[in-house]
Amino acid sequence: MKRPEILEHIPAGFSVYVTSCGIKDNTLDLGVVYSEVPAAAAAMFTRNKVVGNPILLGKEHIANGMLQAIVVNSKNSNVATGKQGYMDSLEICKKTAKELSLKTKDVLPSSTGVIGRPLPVDKILAGLEGLSEKLKSGNSFQDFAAAIMTTDTFPKFGSRKIVNASLVGVAKGSGMIEPNMATMLSYFFTDAQISPKKLNEILKRVVEKTYNSLSIDSDTSTSDTVVIMANGKAGKVDEKEFESALYDLALELTRYLAFDAEGATKLFVVDVKGAASKKEAKKIAKSIINSPLVKTAIYQGDPNWGRIFMAVGKTDGVKVDPDKIQILWGNPPKEYSDLSELSSYLKQNEELLLTVKLSIGDGDWRVYGCDLTEEYVHINAFYTT
Amino acid sequence: MKRPEILEHIPAGFSVYVTSCGIKDNTLDLGVVYSEVPAAAAAMFTRNKVVGNPILLGKEHIANGMLQAIVVNSKNSNVATGKQGYMDSLEICKKTAKELSLKTKDVLPSSTGVIGRPLPVDKILAGLEGLSEKLKSGNSFQDFAAAIMTTDTFPKFGSRKIVNASLVGVAKGSGMIEPNMATMLSYFFTDAQISPKKLNEILKRVVEKTYNSLSIDSDTSTSDTVVIMANGKAGKVDEKEFESALYDLALELTRYLAFDAEGATKLFVVDVKGAASKKEAKKIAKSIINSPLVKTAIYQGDPNWGRIFMAVGKTDGVKVDPDKIQILWGNPPKEYSDLSELSSYLKQNEELLLTVKLSIGDGDWRVYGCDLTEEYVHINAFYTT
Repeated sequence: MKRPEILEHIPAGFSVYVTSCGIKDNTLDLGVVYSEVPAAAAAMFTRNKVVGNPILLGKEHIANGMLQAIVVNSKNSNVATGKQGYMDSLEICKKTAKELSLKTKDVLPSSTGVIGRPLPVDKILAGLEGLSEKLKSGNSFQDFAAAIMTTDTFPKFGSRKIVNASLVGVAKGSGMIEPNMATMLSYFFTDAQISPKKLNEILKRVVEKTYNSLSIDSDTSTSDTVVIMANGKAGKVDEKEFESALYDLALELTRYLAFDAEGATKLFVVDVKGAASKKEAKKIAKSIINSPLVKTAIYQGDPNWGRIFMAVGKTDGVKVDPDKIQILWGNPPKEYSDLSELSSYLKQNEELLLTVKLSIGDGDWRVYGCDLTEEYVHINAFYTT
Repeated sequence: MKRPEILEHIPAGFSVYVTSCGIKDNTLDLGVVYSEVPAAAAAMFTRNKVVGNPILLGKEHIANGMLQAIVVNSKNSNVATGKQGYMDSLEICKKTAKELSLKTKDVLPSSTGVIGRPLPVDKILAGLEGLSEKLKSGNSFQDFAAAIMTTDTFPKFGSRKIVNASLVGVAKGSGMIEPNMATMLSYFFTDAQISPKKLNEILKRVVEKTYNSLSIDSDTSTSDTVVIMANGKAGKVDEKEFESALYDLALELTRYLAFDAEGATKLFVVDVKGAASKKEAKKIAKSIINSPLVKTAIYQGDPNWGRIFMAVGKTDGVKVDPDKIQILWGNPPKEYSDLSELSSYLKQNEELLLTVKLSIGDGDWRVYGCDLTEEYVHINAFYTT
């Protein structure tokens, strides 16, 4: 799969600063994006009932639909750190606001990394010292994408043009990923002019079909956050065109996330067609893409379609007729009666498309995931991540 | 963990035959248990919507609460094999009935193994030829436990005495295990005298707290079956005492299943206490025991308790107060503030007990599972199982 290389379309009026403030080691761990004017903003957060302190605070700060800066650290998620953790996130927002002459609530904080360790807030505050000047250093959105990585093996970013306006998106994450109404960390910046209300509606629709249709290991993070800021510098845009561009970009980032999943060797796309409803199609597709036995089978190209039957059948609360289930592979979808031919398809392709036809109704859904390898176990067993 | 060695208590009036009929190779693959008199019987089956043909037929045969023989093959599950598969299972029951002068519906069939391959029924029928004589060969319940194994590394069996009566249980299974109202394959035989109705009630209650509280990889098999036969040869027993013995034995087998799970190195027991209800406690406990990130962490003794927080919080539709969650380990449960001490506990014990206190209500539940290792991936990626 092609990795992102260049950012073609850069929205006007944003500046970026990244640094290593030494939270864990000397790799990049702190990033700030600042808009020179107040920006309409929308955000979605994890539905995990245990949420990070940055999310508790971020929900307050996004409430009025306006932001002017976001500040993100990696290497520590500030989750399960109690009241002190909340105060730490507030301190970071206050410092950022003071340095940039903003109100505290114009700053949205994010943290990602290990859970349950006190945030080394002094290191972060030191990293923000003189921020106004530092923002002139010319860091790029690519740098920002790199600064927020945890176990990611490459920075994830992309851009789109909507007539006069530009849209940039970045994302991080490669484990603890089954987004529920939001995703790992992902940020979009545009100079298009859109109201906070519209921005919120568009973001919800797009996330449902992209990040919320991604599952890497069925574990829903406590820090999932997606934020979009629209500073209006490029003027108005056609909202349909904007939504389409945002969807396209979010999908590209979703695919990067699946492909760069911990230990993954394959991008696995599952289409469920003809379920009783879209909701049921999504449930069945998620059951397949989260099944360890399906995920291990595709890893080494075992044409073990019985496991797909099993995963369809185990889905709770959906209508299925076992006699009507059809399993197809590839694009265009093809039924393989020859198992060794199917094995070759599975082994030779880095991206696999599975189509399961249920012939019950007209509910279709597509989800994104990956295979399960020894390396996933190794990464998560031998190091605290 | 101690493996089962001897069977102390053998119920009267049952005989066993096992053989290799060459379904896949020359290892044991066929087993029959026969009661010399008709036995009260109860059974529970998988709730997967895709079910094996033996289950479709078995449900018909158990309907009147009486059985006299069960016939089980390993190496092929006869699942997703269409109408022919159903006819094959029927043929096997007919042959067994004819050899033993029974009615066809007094025979319950089971099959376990690969999904979606035609059952080599002729080999099985040949194996059953002359069954009446073969049953005199003196095979044991241990032999039967061995004949029904798939990826199991040791046969699982146990026995109990209830005053005058004896109870034997066997079980198999080590992957595709998240029983839903039933389990992999498990059979109990007793010479106690109990009505089919009572037997059914007792079995349901026992299974709920044992097999239905076990999850190895969250994948619900299409063949899960648990059957009990009570032939009455030892006369009546106190039903409370019988239920207690059955629970005790089923729990022992459940623990064997968890410990012998594919690739597992640790038996992992999770107690959730103080949830809003028993049902919510079970949901949360299952969320923890199925979390790949929790399972990989305990594998190498990573004291990464943040992942347990995450798994509690991601559980759908339950009440949780993050500030009240307490995580304790060991027996008696102990809070570890020193992470290296916790790591030692995790590394040094083959059986781990995690207690999560929620302090919301009085719902408690205990579930059984195991760690997730590279070997699990290897077993399921490199061979068709």
